[in-house]
Amino acid sequence: MDDRLWSIFSRRSIRVYSDEPVSEADLQGLLEAGMAAPSASNRKPWYFVVVTERKTLSALAEAHPYGKMLGRASAAIAVCGDPGLSTWWVQDCSAATENILIAAATLGLGAVWLGCHGNPEREQAIRRVLSIPESIGVLSLLSIGHPAEQKKARTQYDARRVCQNRWQFDV
Amino acid sequence: MDDRLWSIFSRRSIRVYSDEPVSEADLQGLLEAGMAAPSASNRKPWYFVVVTERKTLSALAEAHPYGKMLGRASAAIAVCGDPGLSTWWVQDCSAATENILIAAATLGLGAVWLGCHGNPEREQAIRRVLSIPESIGVLSLLSIGHPAEQKKARTQYDARRVCQNRWQFDV
Repeated sequence: MDDRLWSIFSRRSIRVYSDEPVSEADLQGLLEAGMAAPSASNRKPWYFVVVTERKTLSALAEAHPYGKMLGRASAAIAVCGDPGLSTWWVQDCSAATENILIAAATLGLGAVWLGCHGNPEREQAIRRVLSIPESIGVLSLLSIGHPAEQKKARTQYDARRVCQNRWQFDV
Repeated sequence: MDDRLWSIFSRRSIRVYSDEPVSEADLQGLLEAGMAAPSASNRKPWYFVVVTERKTLSALAEAHPYGKMLGRASAAIAVCGDPGLSTWWVQDCSAATENILIAAATLGLGAVWLGCHGNPEREQAIRRVLSIPESIGVLSLLSIGHPAEQKKARTQYDARRVCQNRWQFDV
């Protein structure tokens, strides 16, 4: 692993947090990172709902089947996209989500990506908690806090997933 | 902008390159970064076709309507996904793509994301050039080289795309 890429390798799914709040400055950094993502034709079809209210975090923890850790998270960000702004909103909002996760790792925070769009029931449950209109997609929900579990930086590099110049995989 | 997040802000769409080849070590770093992305249930539904043959790069430049710069690029990576491995492959491969782009910026390379999946005709044209089977999705094509244009690091932060605790946007 190339040390210069540490911020990418140190992004791990962190689900256990201390009680320390995420500072305004850190939340701002995460949002700046999210909006630095590329988007098709630079249409930026994204909206970010930042949740720090305890009762809303608890409601999100209930609403998402893999979201229990939100009950102890200091913050959450719902990354939403407007399909009316771009037909590429899923890719664009995924890039924004990944930027936020890398930024979180770089700032010493812990975070995890909870998938929403792709599972209509789950997406609808999050929409309801956050009063998101039907016309808007909820790409992801990010649970964020100060880490109370440690995971090592790593690449999951697998040479069997790489080929040269043309498809040569046996699938 | 927080300096610690420089690698994220310095990722810009770079379409002009020098003739210098991308080293094997750099290509390896890009692929390690791509595979360090999160994926739903850690299924890693991705495959990477690395193109460095000049004639194939030229064929890709012809095949993608916004891909002219591939004719001068030293390398390309097609990020592919197997929908049979995960229904979340679009999100997962988008995260892998973004990781590669951030890694490229960090290593001093220039790259740009060319969207494929989402436009069936375009995806099919790339499939044909690289002999990718119909069952496999082509999420993106990345054009990569040593930059011969400079763009400033930047966030595109827009406070109008952020709200607190519940949807409060006027859309």
